[in-house]
Parts: sequence; C-alpha cells; structure tokens
Amino acid sequence: MLARKELFKASLRKSTHAWKMIQDLRFTKEEAKELRIFIDEFSFMDVHWEMFLPAIKAQGTDEQQKQWVPLANKMKIIGCYAQTELGHGSNVRGLETTATFDPKTDEFVLNSPTLSSTKWWPGGLAKIATHALAHARLIIDDKDYGVHAFLVQLRSLDDHLTLPGITIHDIGMKFGSGAYNTMDNGSLIFDHVRIPRNQMLMRLAKVTREGKYVPSGVPMQLSYGIMVYVRQKIVFDASIALSRAVCIAARYSAVRRQFGSQNGSPETQVIDYKTQQARLFPLLASAYAIRFVSEWLNSFYLDLLQRLDAKDFSTLPEAHSCTSGLKSITTTVAADGIEECRKLCGGQGYLTSSGLPELFSVYVSACTYEGDNVVLLLQVARQLMKIISQLNSGNKPGGTTAYLGRAEQLKQYRSNVLRAEDWLKPNVLVEAFEARAARMTFACAQNLSKFNNSDDGFQELSVDLTEAAIAHCQLIVVSKFIEKLQQDIPGKGVKEQLGVLCSIYALFLVHKHLGDFLSTGVITPEQGSLANEQLRSLYSQVRPNAIALVDAFDYTDYFLGSVLGRYDGNVYPKLYEEAWKDPLNDTVIPDGFHQYVEPLLKQQYHNARL
Amino acid sequence: MLARKELFKASLRKSTHAWKMIQDLRFTKEEAKELRIFIDEFSFMDVHWEMFLPAIKAQGTDEQQKQWVPLANKMKIIGCYAQTELGHGSNVRGLETTATFDPKTDEFVLNSPTLSSTKWWPGGLAKIATHALAHARLIIDDKDYGVHAFLVQLRSLDDHLTLPGITIHDIGMKFGSGAYNTMDNGSLIFDHVRIPRNQMLMRLAKVTREGKYVPSGVPMQLSYGIMVYVRQKIVFDASIALSRAVCIAARYSAVRRQFGSQNGSPETQVIDYKTQQARLFPLLASAYAIRFVSEWLNSFYLDLLQRLDAKDFSTLPEAHSCTSGLKSITTTVAADGIEECRKLCGGQGYLTSSGLPELFSVYVSACTYEGDNVVLLLQVARQLMKIISQLNSGNKPGGTTAYLGRAEQLKQYRSNVLRAEDWLKPNVLVEAFEARAARMTFACAQNLSKFNNSDDGFQELSVDLTEAAIAHCQLIVVSKFIEKLQQDIPGKGVKEQLGVLCSIYALFLVHKHLGDFLSTGVITPEQGSLANEQLRSLYSQVRPNAIALVDAFDYTDYFLGSVLGRYDGNVYPKLYEEAWKDPLNDTVIPDGFHQYVEPLLKQQYHNARL
Repeated sequence: MLARKELFKASLRKSTHAWKMIQDLRFTKEEAKELRIFIDEFSFMDVHWEMFLPAIKAQGTDEQQKQWVPLANKMKIIGCYAQTELGHGSNVRGLETTATFDPKTDEFVLNSPTLSSTKWWPGGLAKIATHALAHARLIIDDKDYGVHAFLVQLRSLDDHLTLPGITIHDIGMKFGSGAYNTMDNGSLIFDHVRIPRNQMLMRLAKVTREGKYVPSGVPMQLSYGIMVYVRQKIVFDASIALSRAVCIAARYSAVRRQFGSQNGSPETQVIDYKTQQARLFPLLASAYAIRFVSEWLNSFYLDLLQRLDAKDFSTLPEAHSCTSGLKSITTTVAADGIEECRKLCGGQGYLTSSGLPELFSVYVSACTYEGDNVVLLLQVARQLMKIISQLNSGNKPGGTTAYLGRAEQLKQYRSNVLRAEDWLKPNVLVEAFEARAARMTFACAQNLSKFNNSDDGFQELSVDLTEAAIAHCQLIVVSKFIEKLQQDIPGKGVKEQLGVLCSIYALFLVHKHLGDFLSTGVITPEQGSLANEQLRSLYSQVRPNAIALVDAFDYTDYFLGSVLGRYDGNVYPKLYEEAWKDPLNDTVIPDGFHQYVEPLLKQQYHNARL
Repeated sequence: MLARKELFKASLRKSTHAWKMIQDLRFTKEEAKELRIFIDEFSFMDVHWEMFLPAIKAQGTDEQQKQWVPLANKMKIIGCYAQTELGHGSNVRGLETTATFDPKTDEFVLNSPTLSSTKWWPGGLAKIATHALAHARLIIDDKDYGVHAFLVQLRSLDDHLTLPGITIHDIGMKFGSGAYNTMDNGSLIFDHVRIPRNQMLMRLAKVTREGKYVPSGVPMQLSYGIMVYVRQKIVFDASIALSRAVCIAARYSAVRRQFGSQNGSPETQVIDYKTQQARLFPLLASAYAIRFVSEWLNSFYLDLLQRLDAKDFSTLPEAHSCTSGLKSITTTVAADGIEECRKLCGGQGYLTSSGLPELFSVYVSACTYEGDNVVLLLQVARQLMKIISQLNSGNKPGGTTAYLGRAEQLKQYRSNVLRAEDWLKPNVLVEAFEARAARMTFACAQNLSKFNNSDDGFQELSVDLTEAAIAHCQLIVVSKFIEKLQQDIPGKGVKEQLGVLCSIYALFLVHKHLGDFLSTGVITPEQGSLANEQLRSLYSQVRPNAIALVDAFDYTDYFLGSVLGRYDGNVYPKLYEEAWKDPLNDTVIPDGFHQYVEPLLKQQYHNARL
C-alpha cells in the first residue's frame, strides 16, 4: 500500500511511459486503447483521450477542431472534462457555473457564483490537466441560454502553475487503497476567468461578435452522441471486469477443497458444490452475456455514426435508451458479481492479493458515473411510456422495442412449457421475457393514466417503472445472446457450451425474478419449478467445462493480478510467499511494540508513551 | 491513507491507550466493551478479550482457568485464537495441525505437517500475541482423537521474539485502505513445538499421564457455547454497522437536492424520490429489525447460560441454529445494505470522507468469518430437516420452529388479504411468513425423501435448502419485531413509528421474495400487488420521521466518521474543507510532474525519466 503521493507519482510514470511506447512503436488508435486497458490503472490519460478529445470532435466546429485537435492529439495540451459540480451531478441542466458574454472585450467570463457551483470530480483536473472543457450556463445580456461547453486554460504551459482566478485542488481519497486513487479527481472554482469568444464549442449553437445566439440547426440530441459512445464502452468494460472476477473465483473454486473427505480421500473441490455453482455459473453466463450484448451495442453505435453523418437521426432515441439501460443493468450486475466472486473465494477473497477487493473498489464507481443507474432506468422507462402512448396513433415501434407492437398477443401469452427441457427452446425463453416485459410496461402505462398530472404519476410509480425497465433491458440481453448463437461460431463444441450458458443466464433470471413472471401470469408455479430443475441440470453440464470457459477469456496472470486466480493453480505456496512482502514483515518486533505494548505486558502501562 | 506500518503502529497506540483508560477509570467489563466499540478499530485486544479468554473459560478445567485467566485478565499474556489453516476454514474437522502426545516427557508436540496446515488468519497472531489457543488433531499412540484446543506460548515474555520451532508472519493487506488492516492477521508454522500436557484444554476430555483419552461426560455441544456467544454478538454488530450506514445515507439524502426545480425554486430533496425511499427505508427498517432480533437473541443466550449451568442442554440445538441462521442473514443484509447506502449517496459516497467505503471494507468480512454465510444456512436447513423427520415420531418442535408442528394448517393456508390495509395486521404477516417458510421446508423434505442417499439429496437440493433456511430466518426476524411491538415502548408516537417500520420490513420482503410467496400459493398476485401498494403508502408515512428515526441511533459525528452524515447537515463546506487535507494538495506541482509529464507536454518525452 503506497501513500497517496507515491501512488500518484507511480501512476504518472506508468501512464507517460505508455504514451512513449505508443509513440515509439507507432501504435494505432486501437492498439493504444488496448495498451491502456492492460495498464489497468485510471489516469489523466483516460479522460484526455476518452472524453476531452471526443467531446471537442463532437461539439466543436470544423475550425475549432482544426485548432484544438492537433494540440490534444500530440498532448501539447492535456484536457479534462469539467461538468459535475459539488451540488450538481445527474441534473446537468441545474449546473450553476456561468459563462457571461462580455461584448466589450468579445470574451466569456467564467464564474463560480456559489460553493455548490464548484466543479467537483473531474479526473485529471487536480494536478495534471492544462485545459478543461468546462460546462457552464451561457449568459448573454442577462438572458440564460442553458448549459454549453467552454474550453478554458487552467494552467500555464510554462510552469504548470494555475492561472489567475482559478482555484484547484484534489478532492481526496476514494474507495480502496489503490483503485481510483491513481486519478487526480479535482475541484475547480472560477473567479471571473476570461476566455476568447471562440472557445465556446459552437457546433450546436454559436454566439456572434454582436452577442447574438444562433442555433446551428444541428439537433441538440447530437450532443447525446458522446454519451452513447461512453456508455456503450462502459458496457464492454463491465464484461471485462466481471469476467476477471469470475475467472479468479472459478479457478480458485477448483483449487479449494473443503468437506466431503471420505476415508482419507481429498476433500471435495468447492466448485462441485451446488451452492457454489448456483452463485458462480450464473455470473460466468452473465460475463458472456454482457460481452455479446456489448458487441451488438457497439455495432449499433457504429451504424448510428454512419446514419448521423447522413443526417439520419432516427435511431438516436433508441441508441440513447439502449445504452442507458444496458449501462445500468450491466454495471450493477458486474459490481454485485465481483463482490459475490470475492465471497465465493471465502476468507482468502478478503486479501488484497486475491485481486478482488481492489477490483471491486475501482469498479463500483461505474454504477454512479456517466449516469446514476437508477436515474438511467427511469430514462428507459420514460422512453417505454412514450412508445406506448404513441401506439394508438399507429406508430409502430422498432428495434429492441418492436415486441411492444404485439401488445395484444403478448397480453394473452401463456408459456407452454410442460417439461424441464422445454425451457431450453430459444423461442420459449424469448417469448416469456417479452411477455413479462410487455405486461409490466403496459401495467405501468395503465396505472400512469389514472393520474391527472403525469409527472406526479411518474414519480409515484417510479419504482414499478424501474422494474419494468429492468425487465425490458434483460430481454435485450437474452435476445442478443440467442441471436449470437444463431451465427457461425468456430471451434468444436463451442456453440453448444455457449448455448448452455445462454440458458443458464435466462433461467437464472427467471428464478431470480420469479415474482415478475408469476404475477404477470406469464408462467405457472409449476413451470417456475421446472425452470429451476432445468437450471440445476445445466449447472452439471457446465461444470466439466467451467475452467475452459474462463481460460477462454485469455487473461494473463499479470492482468488478473490475483494469487487465487493463477493459471497454474499453484495457489497456496504463492499465497504464502506473497504475504511475506507486507512491510509489516520487515521486522519481527513491530514499530510501536516497545512504546505501547511492552509496558502493558510488563504491567507498567503507566510508562507507556501514549 | 497511512502506509501499513504507520497504520498498525497508530492502532497499537489507540488500543493500549484504551486499556490504560479502562484500568485508570476502573471500567466495568461492560463499559470496557462499549469503549472498544467506540474506538471502532479492530486490534489484537478484540481477539484477546472476545475469543481467547472466553474460550479458556468455556473449555478449560477449573484448574486451568485458575492458572490462565488471571494472567489473561491482567494482560500479562496476550492471546490469539489459532484455528483456521491455509487449506482449512469452514471444515474444522479437516484441520491438519497435529498435537502428538509424548508419554516419555509428558508433553504434546505441536507440528504443521504440510503447507496447507499453516495456521492462517488468526488476528493478533502476526505481531502481538504471546500465546495462541491452537486447534490441532490430538494424536496418542498413532490414534487420531480429532481436533482439540492447546495453549501454546509463541513469543518470549522477555524480548517478544518468537520461540524456537515457531515461524510467524503477517498475511498481508486486506480490503480497504484502513479497515481491517489495523489487525495483524497472521500465519503460523509449528516445527515440533513441545508444550506440557496440562496445556490442552481439558474440560470436555482429558489426556492422563499414561496417555489415556478420557471424555469428561460434558456434552461436546458445550463447545458450541462459544460459537453461540460470538455469533449472537455478530448479529448485534450487524445492527450497528447497518444503522451507521443508514444514518449517513438518510441525512445526506435530506441535504442533497437534484432535479425538480420549478420557477427557480430549490431542487427536490433526494429523500423525497420514491426510488430513493424504496431503497433507503427498507434498510432503515432492517436496521431496527436486526437490533430487536439481536436483543431477543441475547436474552436467549443468557437463558442458555443459566440452563447450561443447571446441566439443561435442551435449548442448545435451537440456540446454535438460530445464531447460525441469524448471523448469516443479518450480516448479508448489513453488508449489502452498506453498499446500497453508499450508492444512495451518489458520487460523494465514493469518497473516503463519506465514511462508507471503509465501513463496507471492514464490514464485509463478517459474511465469511465465524462461519461462511452459505455454510451456516445449510446448517439451519439440516436442523429443519431433522425436525421434520422427527414430526412423525410425535416430537413436537418448540421455540422458533414451533410453527412446523402446525404443518397441516399451514399447508392449507391462503392469505385472506382483500385490501392493502389488511397487510398491516400482524397476524396476516406472521401467518404468511409461517406458511411460506413451512411450505418451502416441507417441499425440500419431500424432495429429499426421493433420494436413496440422503447426503446426495442434500447436496443436489442444497440451493433450495438455503432458500428455505432464509425463509425460516426471516420469519424469526418478523416475529420478534412484532413481539417487540407488543411490549411497552416509552415515548409519544414511538411505538406507532416502529410499527410502520415493522410493516415496511415485512412487506419489503414479501415484494423481494414475491416468487416464494406466489409459488407456494400463500398469496395471490393481486395480494402481492396490494402489498406493494401498501408499501408505497408506508414510505410516505415514514418520510416525515425518517431523520428522527436515524437520529435516534444517537451516534456522534465522531463515531459516524462521515462528512455526508453530519448531524448539522453542513455537508458541502465540510466536504470542500476535508478534501484539502489530502497530501496531494501539499504542493501545486505534484511529485513526478517534472520527471514524467512536463517532457511529454514539451514534446520531449524521450527525455522523461521513465
């Protein structure tokens, strides 16, 4: 455990070394991204490349891009993304920082009028970034035009000192001992800081020399593009994070033995216990499920980009809703799943050397950043309600919401499962998930219609709405897993094994959300019990291949960073070896023993130097 | 964030200072315990007082107690409890360390024959303990008599150096940056270490000078006594841990505002959102529920002690089962609840200054130590199956399992709820929980009977069995909450508010486990939906008193250790102030900037000192 300063310094070394490699070896953009994944330590670099630069590209005019992108590409400047404030997170429209146009000097004056308007959380801000993309309310002639993005220089490019009118500091330690503490999340107060007019990003709207506000005609939703990009990337990251934890837990569960010894035989491998399988295998299945849905989401995003280029905005609402919802459910599953994997490793999972505590500490932030997971579900629910309200006017929903167009059919659906094996049929699963999601969604819409004020209704029913949104998103994941299985998959028996995982993923959800499926009348208690029976038999089927299925993630021991998850299974000698490295083992008598404990043992505690 | 050595040293200072206070101020045993709770930092002291000493009292003969208890009471020796081994946790019977009787010298020879027999995890062992209560297989004349407890001196009382034949070290960093890292959990290898024969604790069985093994006639179960004590204490600790987190999240939810501003009015307090209430209030209710069940469990334990003194062992199995089951479900709820509270605080919950990350890191170990939570549920299930198998032979179950004696009635039970308010009736709740638990339990028993080999059946059905055990334990908590409300409760309106919390606790479980209640036919989907409706209305009722209900825990700001949970609600200025204390803010230019980042900015990264 390094103290914060040393930890931060080491992180600077690693991230800049990576940049040197990227330059020297002339990595492509994709290769550079891969390298940053393998460094596996958050730093200012991530924010610069993943947020600052893409935002300029998305929201800057051609001219602005010409000016700023080369600087950022060469890292002659380093940027951060300064949006959230001490008092304002989810509600971006509530930001308080102001950017007031001064027609006399043709400048914007950035100001933080209150303590709660202090910029708070931006990574890279506290110690490294030279520039910020600061979000502030545009004020012209006392009129508030809402939140816009402004390029503000924070530090001198000569001596790195903060410029006049700018107060910055680090917001302190976060979860874990390493984890996100390599990132210098910062706070920022503007005291009437002036920037030239052309440093407002003006692709969506511009301010003229005369102080006239001119929207460009490009739809505001275009600014969602960056959100869609970031969130689909988070879904991919969720599959990585969860699969790491699952890999560690599965391998250690095969090494660990406990109970069940008969006549001096070895004890039973814990992976052979049904209770272990029932916790581990659904997570293994989820890791694959999230990976496949993220692949689909990425192709959806790439298609979106092409459409946007052709001024086709038709898929933007669905892209926004899908990425929001999938970001929410996959990060929740990954965060909870990592902690479950830690518990599956018993006491040893609590050791830092297991790799799991730090993985959890660094990962859980994903449930909050880039959209709080509950707020995101409400956004999905809002879109679902909108689709339903438009059904009567003949608007046929498409894409992932197409099933809502088959309302009448789904309202009458009853599962025809008779035997446990029937649950293996893809259409049985999809129909059950569709019917459940549709009925929960329509029930919400119906209950909403009873309120005079729809905002009041939405607030009152918000918990039901989030549950409907979850049902909808789980349907997407199940469907995309099944679609994946309809494609060619190379490798003998691979498709078959993935099919088993797909069934586990879906049937585990049926069991977990049995209340939904039963209360909507989609299945009967007997069918629920058959699902459970089938699930148990699937666990036995996946057991012989469980280790191969985590080996297939192809993580090096270095990347896993876990004594328990070692590929060679040589856990105990290495666990023992690793422990000796703790600084507390440098001496037999620990610091403080003579001052504090010895006097106590010698019954002279009044002499202790307390 | 202190580096490990400094953290440990600081902890030694605090715990020994507390001991000095306890002596100087002549604290009673109870007061001393309270003080250790408020120090709120695990150290060797806890193990010495809560495990080492009670174990000697429980398992030592009168003579042994006379010899060792005064030494331990005065802390002339400091003890640890060395049970688990690198390869052996839950399965105590599988321990490998041996204690072989040598009739020539009248000694036991302690030995660690394999790497996996290394003692692993005992707190206080690594750096401080002078003695260990080591659990080892007793071997006499090559015959293995199973695991017994032995008092072994580890270190010289003169210079604190480890004695010959003993190898000890610290097992390294654990979850979090502070958390349990103040504890020196250690590993221990014995290389033929000799101790006098009278250092085996001999209350349950003795070894004579001639090497004869003589059971004392005191039932082996008596050794459960210490487990019962420790686990009932863990249930109490769960209520403390969860209520701390709930207090922080509730107070901050009243301070935090987001969205919902109309015409420039302040935004809505997040505690007013139904989605927030539906996550926070069930946890508030759970904190109270766990507190009350822990009070009941403590009185049960005290009654058990009296009975044991009178050689009445009749309530021991139930005490063992109740403490196991309640330890399992309450620590799971508390651990998950703390993390949920952290998420309820949004981004700020991720800051160490919120107090929540470290509370979680230190707390989650409770799900694993003193019995893995899943293994414990299986023990409860085993007892439930035993009770059912004895029903036919006319054995009437008592105490918390008495309801299983009303099998026929419960198998036919159908809830008579017609309106949402019906769910407020205590008997409606208790009956529904009884019927659900009974039916799940009987279903398991019936399915088990289909197996030829009951061990195979138990393993195959173990997941269903754990679910039945959870249903049984939740019934206990609900019943004890309701019993509490039947007593006098001082304070105007207090009983009424607690009644609201009790209903929330129970109905939240109905909603969460709706699948159980529906599939067992205890309630209908309509009744489930009425429960949900009632729950929503209860949230509105508890809202005005939510802050008073967490203030009632009466925690000082010092004990809460959270900027977000401050009693005065002055969160933002203090959050800002607290952040400045991070060492990273000591200088404007961070260590490493000139070596690593500056050359990069100046496009001279080849000069960087990487």
